[in-house]
Amino acid sequence: MTSIALARTGQKMPLVGFGLWKVTKSTCADTVYNAIKAGYRLFDGAGDYGNEKEAGEGVRRALQDGLVKREELFITSKLWNTFHAKEHVKALATKQLGLWGIDYFDLFLVHFPIALQYVDPAERYPPEWFGADGKTVTTQDTPMQETWQAMEELVDAGQAKNIGLSNSQGSLILDVLRYARYKPQVLQVELHPYLQQDALVALAKTLKIAITAYSSFGPASYVELSMDRGAGSLLTHDAVTSLANKYNKTTAQVLLRWATQREIAVVPKSNNHERLVQNLDSESFDLTPDDFKALSRLECGLRLNDPADISPFLAIFA
Amino acid sequence: MTSIALARTGQKMPLVGFGLWKVTKSTCADTVYNAIKAGYRLFDGAGDYGNEKEAGEGVRRALQDGLVKREELFITSKLWNTFHAKEHVKALATKQLGLWGIDYFDLFLVHFPIALQYVDPAERYPPEWFGADGKTVTTQDTPMQETWQAMEELVDAGQAKNIGLSNSQGSLILDVLRYARYKPQVLQVELHPYLQQDALVALAKTLKIAITAYSSFGPASYVELSMDRGAGSLLTHDAVTSLANKYNKTTAQVLLRWATQREIAVVPKSNNHERLVQNLDSESFDLTPDDFKALSRLECGLRLNDPADISPFLAIFA
Repeated sequence: MTSIALARTGQKMPLVGFGLWKVTKSTCADTVYNAIKAGYRLFDGAGDYGNEKEAGEGVRRALQDGLVKREELFITSKLWNTFHAKEHVKALATKQLGLWGIDYFDLFLVHFPIALQYVDPAERYPPEWFGADGKTVTTQDTPMQETWQAMEELVDAGQAKNIGLSNSQGSLILDVLRYARYKPQVLQVELHPYLQQDALVALAKTLKIAITAYSSFGPASYVELSMDRGAGSLLTHDAVTSLANKYNKTTAQVLLRWATQREIAVVPKSNNHERLVQNLDSESFDLTPDDFKALSRLECGLRLNDPADISPFLAIFA
Repeated sequence: MTSIALARTGQKMPLVGFGLWKVTKSTCADTVYNAIKAGYRLFDGAGDYGNEKEAGEGVRRALQDGLVKREELFITSKLWNTFHAKEHVKALATKQLGLWGIDYFDLFLVHFPIALQYVDPAERYPPEWFGADGKTVTTQDTPMQETWQAMEELVDAGQAKNIGLSNSQGSLILDVLRYARYKPQVLQVELHPYLQQDALVALAKTLKIAITAYSSFGPASYVELSMDRGAGSLLTHDAVTSLANKYNKTTAQVLLRWATQREIAVVPKSNNHERLVQNLDSESFDLTPDDFKALSRLECGLRLNDPADISPFLAIFA
């Protein structure tokens, strides 16, 4: 399986991983176990996904059954917005590791460059976007520098092998680099043919920050949340279908290859075993420059995951 | 003349000002003097424009001749990228005030969220984009927080009545707000019908940060620099011309009104006296919602001023 060597540590991050967002709690352990059996080595989780315990259960069974060793897995998690203060970062990472039942993350990301009011996990976990009252979105004045320095301490403590950013723009990434003892190793952002982010991809490559694309299938992941903005599906778009036919692949495989062929990692999720296997097996063909050109025409600046929809004070992509 | 009351100080910033970028040194004093005579009260300068001494000469003559009082003027300048370190901010602001011959700026902006290697003004001033060797673009690890705190000290010292940002994205603005003692009062960004930045405008309004649009005429300002990206002129665009005909105004006036009618300040420059007068007189008509709709169709994400063109390490808009 192809991987990217991360800049500071040299650790290899698989180009195709399994995304845990919206993986149903009740089936999550089995899904993760079967994904490992099918060959997945990277799991992309987050405190906010609410299934870390179950994902960890799947990992534990796979380790017990000897399907894989811990060091062959690449486990990613993310720090949620309500835990940006320095006194909360380590407590939360420790809690999350406990849920997974592991003693280090291969990668720990700042989920959003957004600091929200602290919510005690004993009260509500994961707290999602709301503050202590469970209703109001309340920002908190914790600068990114404080959060990043606490993330670096996770590296010092061996709780995170690598740290990185998610949902971040160029100017903020450049500012983090000015004070970072450990530079961000990975940037995870929404990226698909409707939102290609060429300038951000170019900047990350310049800075030797590996990129992980999320929502590779575009609107499809957002339909069930009524967050697809009425956009046409990429999975059935003519431009994608014609390439799928050309290479005798699924449209999902074409959309993943569009990223991985440029060394952009992907973390598709599927609750369906057959598609899960197909997603992993998406590196066995190459798109031509003309194919890339055809897909690049789909760019329309369609961002599906934008916290500004939740509150105008969270417009991190403005 | 219409103005915007700035949030912290309540000071009024005129909606239409005069921009000093590319105003020829040899004619600058006369241009400023005549602009004041014509009714301009806001002058938008910057260390980088290389004409602060001459602009100050024009101001001085106007004050001496009793055309205007200092407190009726609104003078803006900007901190250049090579002076972001805390030990340089005050020295440079003091130098710039000395060039203008005034003892305070009404507004002082961080020109770009970019920190470049210091260049001693005794060696080269303004230093533009290059470091001490005059050839290499070298970034410097000064976090925005350090620069912003030094900007705040200018307020404490009475050298700047208001401070703000320029060329900044949402996530960085939100981070500055987390550590600011004095919040940014103004955000100055490239803004015209080809680059409307609706999300950024909405965020700034939410945050009570006044917006100043620069390059209101789009590509026109960049032709002489061969930086117009081959884009069609806005000043002769059919959509703009038809509105100019409808209201019996110039296309420049239509483009300015497109901003000011939404309380977005503008700082057009002209070396031609007649156009300079027309630009100031651009608030005497109102565009209809349909007119706005017609202009909004021109959006194409065309950013003309992008430091990524100078170095991929400066991709602050990625």
